[in-house]
Amino acid sequence: MEGFYYEQPVPIDFGIGKLKKLPEIIDQFGFEKGLLISTPSMVKNGVAAQIVAASNGKLQEIFSDIQPNPTLKNTDDCADILRSNKYDFAVAIGGGSILDCAKVACFVANTEDSTSIYFYKKKTIDHSGIPLIAIPTTSGTASEITAVSVLTDTDKGIKAPLGSKYLYAKYAIIDPELTYSCPPHVTATSGIDVLAHSLEAFYGKKHQPYTDMAAEKAAKLVFENLLTAYKDPNNIEARVNMSLASVTAGFAFNLTQTAAAHACSYPLTQDFGITHGEACAFTLAAFWRLNSQSDDPYVSTRLQDFSKRCGFEDGNVLADFIDFMKKEMDLCMTLEDAGVTSEELLDNLVANSFAPNMQNNPIEMTPSSLKVFYQSLSKSSAVS
Amino acid sequence: MEGFYYEQPVPIDFGIGKLKKLPEIIDQFGFEKGLLISTPSMVKNGVAAQIVAASNGKLQEIFSDIQPNPTLKNTDDCADILRSNKYDFAVAIGGGSILDCAKVACFVANTEDSTSIYFYKKKTIDHSGIPLIAIPTTSGTASEITAVSVLTDTDKGIKAPLGSKYLYAKYAIIDPELTYSCPPHVTATSGIDVLAHSLEAFYGKKHQPYTDMAAEKAAKLVFENLLTAYKDPNNIEARVNMSLASVTAGFAFNLTQTAAAHACSYPLTQDFGITHGEACAFTLAAFWRLNSQSDDPYVSTRLQDFSKRCGFEDGNVLADFIDFMKKEMDLCMTLEDAGVTSEELLDNLVANSFAPNMQNNPIEMTPSSLKVFYQSLSKSSAVS
Repeated sequence: MEGFYYEQPVPIDFGIGKLKKLPEIIDQFGFEKGLLISTPSMVKNGVAAQIVAASNGKLQEIFSDIQPNPTLKNTDDCADILRSNKYDFAVAIGGGSILDCAKVACFVANTEDSTSIYFYKKKTIDHSGIPLIAIPTTSGTASEITAVSVLTDTDKGIKAPLGSKYLYAKYAIIDPELTYSCPPHVTATSGIDVLAHSLEAFYGKKHQPYTDMAAEKAAKLVFENLLTAYKDPNNIEARVNMSLASVTAGFAFNLTQTAAAHACSYPLTQDFGITHGEACAFTLAAFWRLNSQSDDPYVSTRLQDFSKRCGFEDGNVLADFIDFMKKEMDLCMTLEDAGVTSEELLDNLVANSFAPNMQNNPIEMTPSSLKVFYQSLSKSSAVS
Repeated sequence: MEGFYYEQPVPIDFGIGKLKKLPEIIDQFGFEKGLLISTPSMVKNGVAAQIVAASNGKLQEIFSDIQPNPTLKNTDDCADILRSNKYDFAVAIGGGSILDCAKVACFVANTEDSTSIYFYKKKTIDHSGIPLIAIPTTSGTASEITAVSVLTDTDKGIKAPLGSKYLYAKYAIIDPELTYSCPPHVTATSGIDVLAHSLEAFYGKKHQPYTDMAAEKAAKLVFENLLTAYKDPNNIEARVNMSLASVTAGFAFNLTQTAAAHACSYPLTQDFGITHGEACAFTLAAFWRLNSQSDDPYVSTRLQDFSKRCGFEDGNVLADFIDFMKKEMDLCMTLEDAGVTSEELLDNLVANSFAPNMQNNPIEMTPSSLKVFYQSLSKSSAVS
């Protein structure tokens, strides 16, 4: 076994109704004056105001001007408020976009800089920010326990991750109840993203014993619960288990990073408008199939054994089940579904799929092998 | 699923040869002037001096006056040196006793108090101590990643745990190479302690999904590697896997605490002189047998399923394998082996077995049921 490094510094408070503990946790930390960072919809439906009201005067303002793929302007705006009103803590409640934005804003607020300085790596994120309590409302990104945020520079059309141990939240409250109202399509796309985190952490080159352990637990939970959570949104057990799966997958991919399926997702989202989880799922089954048949017996044996421990006959059957889940949840299956309807579009997709995490795939992908790989996802000969 | 709390704040740097990274890690933290806390044997064989020599002048003194069951005097002496020489960090390298002592000494050094104030809970451990880098040389206690230290007041004959999140080490380096020279009996007793941590964390009342996950991984590693590490001390794979098992079990019992087998171990150690791990192992198989046949189907199903996932036909077969391992490693099996040779001694043993962790057992134990339980471990009718 090779050596490895493991960390997971964020305390996790998990359970139905745990949101009610927020005022107590704020008090335990001795925080005095905080900003609630949330979504426009939680402002509209009054939940944000309820959280403020329950905070014994500690949460004094709400910031919710955050886009689905949060921008540098969103984090700068949020940081300005934190800085100018001298808040000593923040609470973020929302999906991955809200948490990603809040993590970076809390850091930037403790500097005199704008976000772009760090986004373009002119400076390193090298000290703590304002402490953040993170509360997810979807089972997907696990941003509440990871050291990464994904931001977009809308001026230049660049979407990229920022990572640093100083981006970890101070505390994570995971209340599955907050996901009960998640609409089926969001349940599907965020849930399949959890599976991508699990499988990519497992086959990714940076895997190690503790990320393997978490990845396997998370994948099993998704296989056993995602379709139920999708078809029966009020099934509490499935919702709780998907919340657990999301955090557990976070333990893994936070350290391994993601791999090929995520690399392919970026152009599918940016150029073809497919939402993040659906875009990750697009190649997920095919990469599992490919990697589980690797010529390297270390890789193929690991993936085949993993497939069996998850209850499947072999790697192909696991991949078939991913395709089955995608069909059941009405996610796009073919290049044509995704809008890749010409060879030119396919070539662009291939060219834009080589983000650094493509290198984490255990089988080296080249532009030509990736094109053939994508062509296997075509239903017709139009792009093949 | 009930709610739960999870934390594991200690970064883990695991791998053969990782001890060599110590100077680099000291520099990364920006530490300047430190104390090396170690064992008399590591002073004698020159390893302690080598570590000091490699530290670029950062480690300036060695403290090694620590007994196998560290005393309040040991921690006070260590704290005095840390305080009076204004050390800004410490490194502890040794078995559980060294690490336990160092963790408390680093806290006490940041106060004006003696250890007994905290041992007898006149004050709470409520702030950080001097940062500690912990490096275990046995695969057993996992003290390097837990929030607890066990100390002994020799004047009053009281051995008790101190627990606080402020006792966590700042960083753990797990270098399996340090365990290669561990003699077989120490490999056996510390290794079976790891199994006790795993199984007790699993059946203990405070178990939760993440402690279950770690407990199962750790138990599997012990079942697959302990006898090899015992019989073939130079088997690197077995040594590495036992190091991994120890840390993994630490993830679990750090949060669940231990249960009945550990409760029974205290009088077996204090009154009958049986070393810690061997004392924990004494009742471990029998408690697994008892709990896996619980009337509560939640408990019995969990233990039976766990046994099967570990590769055993059922709970009894898992328990039989523990007994087999104990026999192979020449650990004491019966009350008579342990020196409990009269009914009076047995009654004393029963009376002294009710430490608070006895309450963590899923089946409630009473003095009378515990006596019958112990009698099942007698080879003759002498004490039954």
